[in-house]
Amino acid sequence: MRILIIGGGGFVGQKLAHALAARGSLREQPVAHLALADIVEPDTVEAGFSVTTHILDIAERGQVDAIIAGDWDVIYHLAAVVSAQAEADFVAGMRTNFFGTFNILEACRTRIGTPVLVYASSVASFSTDVPQPIQDWTATTPQTSYGTQKAIGELLLNDYSRRGFIDGRGVRLPTVVVRPGKPNAAASSFFSSIIREPLQGEPAMCPVDVEQEVWLASPRVTVENLVRVAEVDGDAIGPMRNFSLPGMTTTVKAMLAALEAVAGENVVGLVDHERNPTIEKIVQGWSSQLVTDKADELGLIRDESFERIIEEFIANDMKPVET
Amino acid sequence: MRILIIGGGGFVGQKLAHALAARGSLREQPVAHLALADIVEPDTVEAGFSVTTHILDIAERGQVDAIIAGDWDVIYHLAAVVSAQAEADFVAGMRTNFFGTFNILEACRTRIGTPVLVYASSVASFSTDVPQPIQDWTATTPQTSYGTQKAIGELLLNDYSRRGFIDGRGVRLPTVVVRPGKPNAAASSFFSSIIREPLQGEPAMCPVDVEQEVWLASPRVTVENLVRVAEVDGDAIGPMRNFSLPGMTTTVKAMLAALEAVAGENVVGLVDHERNPTIEKIVQGWSSQLVTDKADELGLIRDESFERIIEEFIANDMKPVET
Repeated sequence: MRILIIGGGGFVGQKLAHALAARGSLREQPVAHLALADIVEPDTVEAGFSVTTHILDIAERGQVDAIIAGDWDVIYHLAAVVSAQAEADFVAGMRTNFFGTFNILEACRTRIGTPVLVYASSVASFSTDVPQPIQDWTATTPQTSYGTQKAIGELLLNDYSRRGFIDGRGVRLPTVVVRPGKPNAAASSFFSSIIREPLQGEPAMCPVDVEQEVWLASPRVTVENLVRVAEVDGDAIGPMRNFSLPGMTTTVKAMLAALEAVAGENVVGLVDHERNPTIEKIVQGWSSQLVTDKADELGLIRDESFERIIEEFIANDMKPVET
Repeated sequence: MRILIIGGGGFVGQKLAHALAARGSLREQPVAHLALADIVEPDTVEAGFSVTTHILDIAERGQVDAIIAGDWDVIYHLAAVVSAQAEADFVAGMRTNFFGTFNILEACRTRIGTPVLVYASSVASFSTDVPQPIQDWTATTPQTSYGTQKAIGELLLNDYSRRGFIDGRGVRLPTVVVRPGKPNAAASSFFSSIIREPLQGEPAMCPVDVEQEVWLASPRVTVENLVRVAEVDGDAIGPMRNFSLPGMTTTVKAMLAALEAVAGENVVGLVDHERNPTIEKIVQGWSSQLVTDKADELGLIRDESFERIIEEFIANDMKPVET
């Protein structure tokens, strides 16, 4: 079993690499090799199999062809220019998200073999302009360029699968909360910041109304589902190869209440509120109510409570508070 | 008013050009110039304004940039590699339908001005794997490469409109019946052949079960709607710039009954039946039940009966029967 993670230097990619290292197998075969590729060289992971790291710009077809030529059984495509960045820089988003995804699929089409390809799409492919809750068969009517580019990747993935060029599985990730590390250029970044920074003794800014709803999943559940998605039998998915991963619907207010319940009033007091219309407009355009029939049918899992998500962050991802 | 029709040599493009010639105006302005561009040089039309014809391969970015640089107020994008051809030759379909549409949008983005862009998508973007009837907000889950490529064009059109690069309107055409002329490589071609050929005294072959349903519109209604779609106010369309054109749901059996009612038993007797699994599979994957709320709201029109469609073909498009 040879596995390639494109976007393997990112937060989800690194978590997935660690999960694969801990398991040692995928699709009932021992992992022989794991390659992590990203726009900057990814950190490696300790594992009982060989791990290599690679610099890869997916917008460069030659680089993509070179790495995809490896005899991969499973390829994860997690690489993206994130939402606020793709909105601010249209060309950068098209380059990586549109052409990059096309390059990966074309490289798979023109090589020998039919790899399992797990593609990370996003709840941002959906909008609030269509009847809620979102079903697996609701139109992707994204109101961001990021969501548009992700939805185009879904369509390509489906057709390349139908034609037998790949065994594709496109999954729409909820907003992943709590992310460790630093804020990034995703419009959703604050959903993690308002939990992570206060727990680490730092101030955070909430740019939206506290009644704002969000569809989210923990890093643990997201990574576990990415593993399961690679393991399910392709025929069990059926002809529609894109579906939503399970998530939970909550509000900023409920998230902050959970933070207070877990960590106390002083911690939640580190969150300030100042609305940012740019962020607010993007986030309001995302659906927060989704039905995940296909994922449920395939045995994917969901979080139980936001308190538990916070506790998992504290246990696994929190950097020591500087005192 | 300067108008460019890309795909202006095709059947719908030529009908549209004649309709514009007859009207002499669009969006309440007299037409000053009409350009017809296609992969082979289009026939010109007689009009009270200047008409030019151009050879254009939309997959060639330089050619697209050169023609789009003209100061067009309204651009129609009707060019495509059709369904059965895009299914048989994946690269040809991707080249014209995917990159060609991208090239047109990019040329619009990087020029001065915001043209009205009318994009011909297709009912083939929808499948029968989702709840019927199809709504404007039902997912495009195409089960052909042609439908995939059309659906990708829709997503791009929407984002380029949202960003103000174009004033886009993407309309999903029903199968257009009765087409004059010769059969083409569209999987839907036989829907016209089984009416056109017998009326012209020639045999025709029906490759599907007579109970097969189809979502269709006449050439007259399709062209009138393409004119109206260009004329509606962009703001009236709202943030979802793609919607289905009105059509009628009928069966092959009902079409043949209408043919018999209009032209008699001897004419309908020229239709033979031999099922073709390739054509059948493609056609069965298309939805025939659509709700067209957005189009109805915008004042688009629909056919009254299939008998009238046949009578219009006889009056306007039938070549003289050779005796």
